[in-house]
Amino acid sequence: MASPPPRVQHLQSQMTAHNLDAIICTQPTSTFYLSGFNPIIYSDPVLVILPRQSGPILLVHALRSTHARSSAWTPTIHLYGTWGPTPTLAPTWPAALTTLLDGCDLPTHPTIGIEHDTLPATQHTLLRHTLSTATLTNCTPLLHASRAIKDPDEIAHTRIAATLAEKGMESAIAALAHPSTSERDAVLAALQSMHAHWAVHYPSVEICDFGSPEGGVNSGLTAWVLSGPRQAFGCDNPLPRVPRPGESVSVFVWAVANGMHAELERTVWIGEVGLGLGLGGLSPRRAMRDALDIRAEVLRLLRPGAAVRELYRAAVRGYEVRGYAAYVPGRIGHSVGLGPHELFFLEEREERMLQAGMVVAVEVNILVPGAGGVCVQLSDTFLVTAEGWERLTRFAEGEVTVRADGDVTVV
Amino acid sequence: MASPPPRVQHLQSQMTAHNLDAIICTQPTSTFYLSGFNPIIYSDPVLVILPRQSGPILLVHALRSTHARSSAWTPTIHLYGTWGPTPTLAPTWPAALTTLLDGCDLPTHPTIGIEHDTLPATQHTLLRHTLSTATLTNCTPLLHASRAIKDPDEIAHTRIAATLAEKGMESAIAALAHPSTSERDAVLAALQSMHAHWAVHYPSVEICDFGSPEGGVNSGLTAWVLSGPRQAFGCDNPLPRVPRPGESVSVFVWAVANGMHAELERTVWIGEVGLGLGLGGLSPRRAMRDALDIRAEVLRLLRPGAAVRELYRAAVRGYEVRGYAAYVPGRIGHSVGLGPHELFFLEEREERMLQAGMVVAVEVNILVPGAGGVCVQLSDTFLVTAEGWERLTRFAEGEVTVRADGDVTVV
Repeated sequence: MASPPPRVQHLQSQMTAHNLDAIICTQPTSTFYLSGFNPIIYSDPVLVILPRQSGPILLVHALRSTHARSSAWTPTIHLYGTWGPTPTLAPTWPAALTTLLDGCDLPTHPTIGIEHDTLPATQHTLLRHTLSTATLTNCTPLLHASRAIKDPDEIAHTRIAATLAEKGMESAIAALAHPSTSERDAVLAALQSMHAHWAVHYPSVEICDFGSPEGGVNSGLTAWVLSGPRQAFGCDNPLPRVPRPGESVSVFVWAVANGMHAELERTVWIGEVGLGLGLGGLSPRRAMRDALDIRAEVLRLLRPGAAVRELYRAAVRGYEVRGYAAYVPGRIGHSVGLGPHELFFLEEREERMLQAGMVVAVEVNILVPGAGGVCVQLSDTFLVTAEGWERLTRFAEGEVTVRADGDVTVV
Repeated sequence: MASPPPRVQHLQSQMTAHNLDAIICTQPTSTFYLSGFNPIIYSDPVLVILPRQSGPILLVHALRSTHARSSAWTPTIHLYGTWGPTPTLAPTWPAALTTLLDGCDLPTHPTIGIEHDTLPATQHTLLRHTLSTATLTNCTPLLHASRAIKDPDEIAHTRIAATLAEKGMESAIAALAHPSTSERDAVLAALQSMHAHWAVHYPSVEICDFGSPEGGVNSGLTAWVLSGPRQAFGCDNPLPRVPRPGESVSVFVWAVANGMHAELERTVWIGEVGLGLGLGGLSPRRAMRDALDIRAEVLRLLRPGAAVRELYRAAVRGYEVRGYAAYVPGRIGHSVGLGPHELFFLEEREERMLQAGMVVAVEVNILVPGAGGVCVQLSDTFLVTAEGWERLTRFAEGEVTVRADGDVTVV
């Protein structure tokens, strides 16, 4: 990338407003956000220094030199560690960091933002010693506020993730239309189709998710299928269990494209909707319609300037008037971006307003557990636009039924 | 699981030796280690309290109740949060934690271990306020020492992960034997074969890796294929690049089974070994032999009681006497377990001794970059046994060549 994405300059103007001379990031999502580099394996810390007045400085272990130079959009890359003949700034990252900060022309007693909300206590102590003349403050809120509004390149990648998720959903549902398909078969069909679509259509897109310091060797193209009584799990790996006629099945698909995620969830009925269910006075068909109707009421509020809390409240009213007062979920969605569940939830205690460029998953689910209960799982990924919203995961809404003859119906 | 695995009692005896009344874990790998529950999505904190004299207490958000009760081996599960009609201890985890500790019969001023090395500074502050009458100490070293020696159930799952990795390697190499196979095609072949093998043979095994608080929706069955000049990346997602005759290709396969990882890496030559390489006086065939010979020298030291550092030193001597003094890597392997790179490296500064029950990846690679350079990537996962070692990833060692007619040779 020739020039840094707009988020860098925007973040720097916020740093000026908050009197921060620099920020130092260590969290995988943050260092990717400010450099474009995901090492996949985070066995050695990756750091980014963002001074207020110059571009991001990426600091990586010598082992990651070639990979970083090929992947990062930031041109300023330095190395630490000892690895064969590769010259580095210092054997350890704290020593290399000191050298780099000395070259940043900071005040004698700078104010430096670090990531309190994710920085481990031990690393925090190490940074306090390394930056002994600096005042350290928590820059997590600043970074999160910046991440909440997506840059154009981030939105473009979210669209790709949404497309991959749609392919996964199509394949999982098509698989479920065959009577001997297990949860696991349906998941394998989704995984294979997402990976194949990625391989053919998006050759330059990274689908590795962000790992933990202990691992991080992961494909972010994932699906789960939970059938019958297992729907209440909300998430679990699939089993060889074959859904029975009349049961409903939750299909969850997640995809990532260059760090940006998309979420797509549907409920599929095997055979006729409601067959074998609907005891206890609850009609699964009505529950599906109710979920869609409550969601429609929430979506009417989804626009810049709306309070996130008001979306949740609209859903609560919608659940209550339809007889689900005892089953109101604690949240009805979440921000989506570098994390599949990042930054904030659509819930009562959230205080922020929506802004154009935010991406949220709206999931108005209905879960009434036990015999005669119902489970409707319904989630899509939405971009908040100047006019309101755009649904990025474009898979058909509505009642999905599959029959033993391979027929798939969406009403 | 009827009774807790041996690690619980062993850890409690160490807690007694270190005067710890309880430990409180929040890191995904640790909470899984002490409860058997991986929620897959870590959007709400998972905690485990281990008192010195009773079994692990799992504390999860109400949303994860059904999943936790179905997956965890610990029978003591409590809930926090607000979610429909589910009764919980308290709306927040700190309040629920206080209630649980009150019931643990701890001293008035207990000493409690927390995970300094991974606990974020903000959470650390929250815990200090919540546990205001307690002395908090860092229990990461205690947990890591415990994790380094695997329990029988952990070794059994490592064997399954190793088997899955072997299937992935076989399929990637078989795919590379066709002349138009790209890096990406080979990776897709490995992914499909590992997932299919898992689905058929290990129906009850969890293959989801541990996620970060922002995500964590990941399959841990992963492969990379890097060809020609891209070998030097060490890790990267595959490209549509088709390896050329005479080039070498690094194939990396990772697998996970109920949290336990295995690593398997090989170098494959397209066509004849050394064709199109070997400039600069370096013979790829000799480099392959050298890597195997150095590894054999390291493996002679791999047994209980050996200093990890001595393994590294043996490798350094091996590199030096064979003319690679300028290209000695900074480490030649790592511990493997709940993380694919966990706990310690096989490197000069490591001070510990090997013990039976440890699992390590030994990777004696040779990387001489640039034109005329060579890259040999060679890693297997080894169990340290009373007698020495057992190679868990049993894929053939040696020179792997593939030809355009689909022929695969291992010498």
